[in-house]
Amino acid sequence: MIFVPGSITAFFSPEIHENPLKSGSVGVGITIDRGVRVSYREEGIRVNEEEWNFPTVKYVIERLGGGGVDISMELPVGCGFGMSGASALAAAFEIASARNLNAPFSKLADLAHEAEVVNRTGLGDVVTQSHGGVVARLSSGCPSLARVERFLWRAELEFLVMGELDTSTILESSLTRIQKEGKTCLKEFIKNPKLLNLFTLSKKFAEETGLMDDDVRDVVEAVEAAGGIASMVMLGKTVFAQKGLEALKEFGEPFTAKIDHCGVRIY
Amino acid sequence: MIFVPGSITAFFSPEIHENPLKSGSVGVGITIDRGVRVSYREEGIRVNEEEWNFPTVKYVIERLGGGGVDISMELPVGCGFGMSGASALAAAFEIASARNLNAPFSKLADLAHEAEVVNRTGLGDVVTQSHGGVVARLSSGCPSLARVERFLWRAELEFLVMGELDTSTILESSLTRIQKEGKTCLKEFIKNPKLLNLFTLSKKFAEETGLMDDDVRDVVEAVEAAGGIASMVMLGKTVFAQKGLEALKEFGEPFTAKIDHCGVRIY
Repeated sequence: MIFVPGSITAFFSPEIHENPLKSGSVGVGITIDRGVRVSYREEGIRVNEEEWNFPTVKYVIERLGGGGVDISMELPVGCGFGMSGASALAAAFEIASARNLNAPFSKLADLAHEAEVVNRTGLGDVVTQSHGGVVARLSSGCPSLARVERFLWRAELEFLVMGELDTSTILESSLTRIQKEGKTCLKEFIKNPKLLNLFTLSKKFAEETGLMDDDVRDVVEAVEAAGGIASMVMLGKTVFAQKGLEALKEFGEPFTAKIDHCGVRIY
Repeated sequence: MIFVPGSITAFFSPEIHENPLKSGSVGVGITIDRGVRVSYREEGIRVNEEEWNFPTVKYVIERLGGGGVDISMELPVGCGFGMSGASALAAAFEIASARNLNAPFSKLADLAHEAEVVNRTGLGDVVTQSHGGVVARLSSGCPSLARVERFLWRAELEFLVMGELDTSTILESSLTRIQKEGKTCLKEFIKNPKLLNLFTLSKKFAEETGLMDDDVRDVVEAVEAAGGIASMVMLGKTVFAQKGLEALKEFGEPFTAKIDHCGVRIY
């Protein structure tokens, strides 16, 4: 069985190339201690005991010569937790393990990244999830090409999922602003790499790019009014916070998760 | 509290430069699920509740501006489990965490590597322990410079510690052979990266370099006669094996440990 942590993105700047292995994003992501657990099966892709059409995972399986996977997801899909990247990464390692492919880490991680880019389900989650912790992606591309810097911070985060986001439409309409603002935030973070600063920059990014809508802003402001810090998960209609649990409860059913410091792992 | 896994080396080829950050070794190491746990204290270095003079750890603490550490070691020192590297790495992260230094992973890992090289206690353990798993170090140097390839293999290994080894004398007397043979083994491993091949190459390395003495050879051959595989840990008078537990028991008190797939982590 393979576990891959879910990850959220504080801010990012996409870089698209013709070669999917060179495509990706710079930015900062955080892995958390909930994610996906994947086990091998003869054929088909099942997620939480239901058959799924899951092109990103299918791409990985086909490139490794076939097979199937049972995926257990501990976080919702389409809400900014990198579930497709985590599933693709875990599927790659589980298939390789079950079939004794002896494939190196970089080959499997790069394949999962490629599957994400080709299927337009993610640009940076697989890199973050390959490393674990607070991961600053300093250059874009697949895991074997992307330069990263990591930070191991002991912290618990709070999350409130408010719904799904149609990320493809959003990306198209504000791509230039996102690219510019994401790079600026990354520079500012590297100068002052602290959790508080990460929240501040993430919120600035969400505002400057127009990604934060009124619903999300209301929640973020309520957390701040209660003495906490919060921002919007990129890209999902999800708020992440610290010391904001009580305020979040006014808007729904939040959950907590710790920062996880290890990437993909095998059990 | 910081945990860093212990690590063994199957074979290696040292490369020494004037700059300690460029010094190191290529080769293959494996992290296991026993290691060191380090907690912050005001001053002094304690190992398993005794005061120690521990220059490698002291070097790290002084470079980070002072403090002390309580180290709990789950493996013996001087027997090839990379305990000095693990202690230095864990001390670096624990001091940085306790004092809110917000230092990036690469800075702390590079410092631990430098402490090992300067104090002549290790050349590759810190790189292996920074990544976790079966780690092929493809180029030498500190963690931020060394290129690696990883393999996540699910396996339990058996160990028999037979005593300490004076590594500095050994390294001097057979340096050229070690350098040449280590590089050859690395090439052969990358061509066929399997656990069985790793044992085979490690044993070849130990024989060709003259590092394996009669005591160790007797144990390795006993494991093989019983249908297992075994080799000598680099550098310690320690045997590592698979399916050799009963045979190892004839010579002492072996223990088992699983391959660990995560490097340094914070709790």
